[in-house]
Amino acid sequence: MRIITIGREFGSGGREIGKRLADALGVPCYDKEIIHEVAILHGLSPEYVDNISMKDIQFVYPSTIGRTFGATAYYNNSAITALASQQEVIKKLASQGDCVFVGRGADAVLEAFNPLNIFVYADKDAKLKRCMERATDGETEKEILKQMQRIDKSRAGVRNLLTDKAWGKKETYHLCVNTTGVEIKALVPGLVEYAKSWFEGQGE
Amino acid sequence: MRIITIGREFGSGGREIGKRLADALGVPCYDKEIIHEVAILHGLSPEYVDNISMKDIQFVYPSTIGRTFGATAYYNNSAITALASQQEVIKKLASQGDCVFVGRGADAVLEAFNPLNIFVYADKDAKLKRCMERATDGETEKEILKQMQRIDKSRAGVRNLLTDKAWGKKETYHLCVNTTGVEIKALVPGLVEYAKSWFEGQGE
Repeated sequence: MRIITIGREFGSGGREIGKRLADALGVPCYDKEIIHEVAILHGLSPEYVDNISMKDIQFVYPSTIGRTFGATAYYNNSAITALASQQEVIKKLASQGDCVFVGRGADAVLEAFNPLNIFVYADKDAKLKRCMERATDGETEKEILKQMQRIDKSRAGVRNLLTDKAWGKKETYHLCVNTTGVEIKALVPGLVEYAKSWFEGQGE
Repeated sequence: MRIITIGREFGSGGREIGKRLADALGVPCYDKEIIHEVAILHGLSPEYVDNISMKDIQFVYPSTIGRTFGATAYYNNSAITALASQQEVIKKLASQGDCVFVGRGADAVLEAFNPLNIFVYADKDAKLKRCMERATDGETEKEILKQMQRIDKSRAGVRNLLTDKAWGKKETYHLCVNTTGVEIKALVPGLVEYAKSWFEGQGE
């Protein structure tokens, strides 16, 4: 089984890399699809599941779901239930065959599948430029920078519920790709070959 | 001009990647060669130049070489002179054509050449295993771990004299390659293609 996961900073082009890489490999890319399936399972809106952040996680005593936080505190609410369900959906999809996951802490969820875990990042200015080009609601530079910070912080926070391996730290990943100043489309053939090499080089 | 620089953690296999990548691309790989040339220029031993660390850098007032440290302190001694000379040698070699540099802060020195800057790293256990396999003087695990720490600290420190871009931080590099649990030889075809892709993708 050859599973690739893509973690990414907001605005770095990680989602585009995931989609293009999956296309080039002829395998499915899972991103919003996971969210939709989870949302349907729980009667939640996709927007709700997509935007779960740490502020949605409430601590309750006692509970049977979640990791301990401090000595005896557990968390459990619909956000946690949705996250747990998302993990099951990710595992189910991974079991079906080779694929690419974008975000959703898939690298942590799928550790037993030994996936190739890639992190995509870029300089702040490059990310801002990318977001400004794609802004559809006339967002200002300041608004986008704020959104960037908020989303990355949320990704790191939600991830901490799943694993001790820190979001965005190079040690967590097998390959970290800086998209600053480079055309993302051009990187894909290189990433395809790198992925093949990496899977072939496993088991030393 | 297509220049590739390899920064690396001690024991991660960065030097092997550099050599193999250069071989696969049919270009020269510069590493010890730089040291030897610099050493000869200054009548120093290659071992001395190879092992310049922060403790060799003394602060003197006044001087004309070096960056300010604090308000008015400059540094200048034979270690700094050798480092400055090493920079000239690196630029001279880069001007001669496509090539790969391993270490020596080449990514910082060659910024104007727009090189592809790769950082090679691995988990501590993977690096230790690699070093133990290559240990020729019967070093103990403890000794190798100490050596690892000392050399990486020295690399980071000497680098700080050249640039504000931190050694080993993913933001400093275009690609970060984790060699943990993977056969280095197998990664090379992937890295060759990635390098080609990256150079083709420049100029977005």
